[in-house]
Amino acid sequence: MAQSLKTSIRALSSNCARFSTVAVGSKPASKVRHLLSISSLSPGELGYLIDTAAHYRRLIKADSFSTPSNKLPLLGHTIALLFSKRSTRTRVSSEVAINYFGGHPMFLGKDDIQLGVNESAYDTSRVISSMTSGIVARVGPHSDIVDLSVASSVPVINALCDTYHPLQAIADVLTIKESFKNLPGLKLAWVGDANNVLNDLATACAMTGINVSVATPSAYSVDSSVFANIRETASASGVTIEVGHDPLAAVKNADVIVTDTWVSMGQESEKQLRLQQFAGFQVTAKMASKGGAKDTWKFMHCLPRKPEEVSDEVFYSDRSLVFDEAENRLYAMLAALEGFVIKQGKLE
Amino acid sequence: MAQSLKTSIRALSSNCARFSTVAVGSKPASKVRHLLSISSLSPGELGYLIDTAAHYRRLIKADSFSTPSNKLPLLGHTIALLFSKRSTRTRVSSEVAINYFGGHPMFLGKDDIQLGVNESAYDTSRVISSMTSGIVARVGPHSDIVDLSVASSVPVINALCDTYHPLQAIADVLTIKESFKNLPGLKLAWVGDANNVLNDLATACAMTGINVSVATPSAYSVDSSVFANIRETASASGVTIEVGHDPLAAVKNADVIVTDTWVSMGQESEKQLRLQQFAGFQVTAKMASKGGAKDTWKFMHCLPRKPEEVSDEVFYSDRSLVFDEAENRLYAMLAALEGFVIKQGKLE
Amino acid sequence: MAQSLKTSIRALSSNCARFSTVAVGSKPASKVRHLLSISSLSPGELGYLIDTAAHYRRLIKADSFSTPSNKLPLLGHTIALLFSKRSTRTRVSSEVAINYFGGHPMFLGKDDIQLGVNESAYDTSRVISSMTSGIVARVGPHSDIVDLSVASSVPVINALCDTYHPLQAIADVLTIKESFKNLPGLKLAWVGDANNVLNDLATACAMTGINVSVATPSAYSVDSSVFANIRETASASGVTIEVGHDPLAAVKNADVIVTDTWVSMGQESEKQLRLQQFAGFQVTAKMASKGGAKDTWKFMHCLPRKPEEVSDEVFYSDRSLVFDEAENRLYAMLAALEGFVIKQGKLE
Repeated sequence: MAQSLKTSIRALSSNCARFSTVAVGSKPASKVRHLLSISSLSPGELGYLIDTAAHYRRLIKADSFSTPSNKLPLLGHTIALLFSKRSTRTRVSSEVAINYFGGHPMFLGKDDIQLGVNESAYDTSRVISSMTSGIVARVGPHSDIVDLSVASSVPVINALCDTYHPLQAIADVLTIKESFKNLPGLKLAWVGDANNVLNDLATACAMTGINVSVATPSAYSVDSSVFANIRETASASGVTIEVGHDPLAAVKNADVIVTDTWVSMGQESEKQLRLQQFAGFQVTAKMASKGGAKDTWKFMHCLPRKPEEVSDEVFYSDRSLVFDEAENRLYAMLAALEGFVIKQGKLE
Repeated sequence: MAQSLKTSIRALSSNCARFSTVAVGSKPASKVRHLLSISSLSPGELGYLIDTAAHYRRLIKADSFSTPSNKLPLLGHTIALLFSKRSTRTRVSSEVAINYFGGHPMFLGKDDIQLGVNESAYDTSRVISSMTSGIVARVGPHSDIVDLSVASSVPVINALCDTYHPLQAIADVLTIKESFKNLPGLKLAWVGDANNVLNDLATACAMTGINVSVATPSAYSVDSSVFANIRETASASGVTIEVGHDPLAAVKNADVIVTDTWVSMGQESEKQLRLQQFAGFQVTAKMASKGGAKDTWKFMHCLPRKPEEVSDEVFYSDRSLVFDEAENRLYAMLAALEGFVIKQGKLE
Repeated sequence: MAQSLKTSIRALSSNCARFSTVAVGSKPASKVRHLLSISSLSPGELGYLIDTAAHYRRLIKADSFSTPSNKLPLLGHTIALLFSKRSTRTRVSSEVAINYFGGHPMFLGKDDIQLGVNESAYDTSRVISSMTSGIVARVGPHSDIVDLSVASSVPVINALCDTYHPLQAIADVLTIKESFKNLPGLKLAWVGDANNVLNDLATACAMTGINVSVATPSAYSVDSSVFANIRETASASGVTIEVGHDPLAAVKNADVIVTDTWVSMGQESEKQLRLQQFAGFQVTAKMASKGGAKDTWKFMHCLPRKPEEVSDEVFYSDRSLVFDEAENRLYAMLAALEGFVIKQGKLE
């Protein structure tokens, strides 16, 4: 009896107690650690985040939220979601993850707040961070997220800017790891636009031993300064980074073929031009076979997807990891929240 | 002491524990049970939902949320609210009910997500259901809610489509039951438009023994396939279903007179035409008396209400059950959440 | 062991239990106490709210939400936020405060609900209050908040109308108290527009012993009926209330200089005219010195701020209490929620 009482209480404690380390913003802004891009992590820290994401994936898939190991560390805490554009996966994964830990996701869209319009981003960030325990921001220019982080006394997590997309990269590497088990020596082919997703994904590949081959239309090239850093990381870990304009060459011996939307929100006006420029870049079974991808190649896409980017036959096939990849956004966000908000940047 | 310790722990356990049966979407979509319309229920299951709603009504009215019998089964869980149009009662009752059980209502309006516009409803539903524990959807065409449910690995609750409105029907029958105690043999007169609310309400009446008489303007007729099913259900339970165009004939001997808005959101342009077509359909004390409604007749309306549909004298009188009916939307949603999300469709 | 068990249980109880006094709206509307303006409080009640706000400030700054003295009294409860205009500080402080107590803040903006447009404010308020435990409203005309409160069976908290802004006033007096310790005998100079913030701030000053000197452009005058009441309160407590049009005269011997935005949302069209009318009203170090403010004068502004109202040199200096003042909005809202929702208007 006494034993079972103790056990009950321990279970309840772990269920109801809240971490004492989570703070509302009273730290000096300069001491706070943010997640702005994969490049601000060491390879070990990235590995820690991927392992943490995998941990929550197992936990939630096994018995669905009811486990006592979720101590609701954010109960009573609010995390601000500052979203300048809509974004289904980012929004849903953020709200679900924050709520999983017991926190309140406070969504502020472009109709609620416009960074820099009615007051400076600095003032807004100081005020919001003084009342909340973290900020998840989905902005336009990278400078917006930098501005937010400079003034914020709580951790800022970049949930998408025009240059980086760290949570997508964590989810993507987790997806590859769940499918292939061992990462070093794999080859990932990126066939499509040179964008924010590519920047952080290629960085994450360089850190985890995955070789990367990029093919973009000749009108588009990778960000040269970002890729200079990626090559440096890659050379330290013996990873190959290739950049070119031939989709068939890129997929040669690939384990994973990845693409993304060519025509993002806000680019609809130039759609016709882009469709021409991306001719030959649609991922199909025939193209993969012609280019010489491995027999076991898998397909990834961060969604939403338009048919011109990938055939239905590939997209809805067993090769396709897309829905797993989308679900992994949840586990990536759980890892980021645990690492940056709950553990305040101590990624170990 | 040991006794009081045990009691305390039991109380705390029931307060803090979470049902182990609630799952994030990992079931095959084909095994999930959804609430799309009243017609997908057996009469016994409808009775179960009405009784459950009555149970929560008593509980909440008695001591207001603090009862330990609310075990917060959805703590840590998120339920997505997909709303293509705004809707005060549906929105409020959904958010309050989900939160009552400890869950997080994640509201996604038409500015957050547009079914089928930026990606297919199938893709959206697979992704959202993979991260959440349920979807409450308020859509336009019925096909939208069907599309959502086909791809969803978690229960979908129809919170209003152009053909059905099951939660309103549960709330309405609960309202009648709280007012009249015994349902079999009552007569409900529907005076007004032939719409989604009528379809599910008449079905629910047929299942619970309430006779129905419908009067619509001659320009509008009931949905013939829906009413064919209703007649079949009615004949099994000895219930009378009458359909016509004379409001005075419809209210003859009625216990309850029900109407709804004639000019819904999006129909404002044809307002003048509709006002002509609905001449003589306003519910007033005089009209009820002239038609021969029972002395004790009650009035119902699912709100929002415009004065042309019902006189102030009736609407704000003791005959009017409208505010009780609106409040009962909360208890109907609690019953639906318990039945479909927490108990996963086992309505017993 | 038994002892530590008891201690654990007590800690858990206080952590998880919910106040039994919080109710969903079943009281007759006439028995509910609302917070519509500072003038509806006695000086003692205002003091209680300021002390309660100070209590939560200490608690949260000391160990950040994890204290067991937060009993999550609103767990399972929903508070409706009815916002007819956007408002960063009001929105954020409301959501964070409600969530701190365990409640769910249900945000309904102008796209979700429009008071009086699709249905009467009376009907809307009766329905929403029947499902929730409180209403926080940010409206246009004061009559809107009166209409809401008349029909509501739960407490309504005025989070800004065109005539009053009680939560800002509580936050402002708290800010002054934290900075100066003793309030009686201080002098506050208001230099700028005659608005809703001034009305409640001057009332709060009159109740707490702070002398007030107001300077507005000659085209704008204070609300004469509001100020008649303020003078009455002031004379009872020996406080001086001066009203004029000379900024330099107003800041003479001032301990605190306060201004507010001259061009609020919706007034952008008349911006040029107002900039002319407010010439000479910008708060600067030179102006304060020339007018003869005390050496130790402090600056306050309820934000958002435009540079024409106050120089950067003052705004970002050590004299400036603006970010503290903004943060205090959180503690003011916690005090209002505890006083009006949890304790149901018993401010003692």
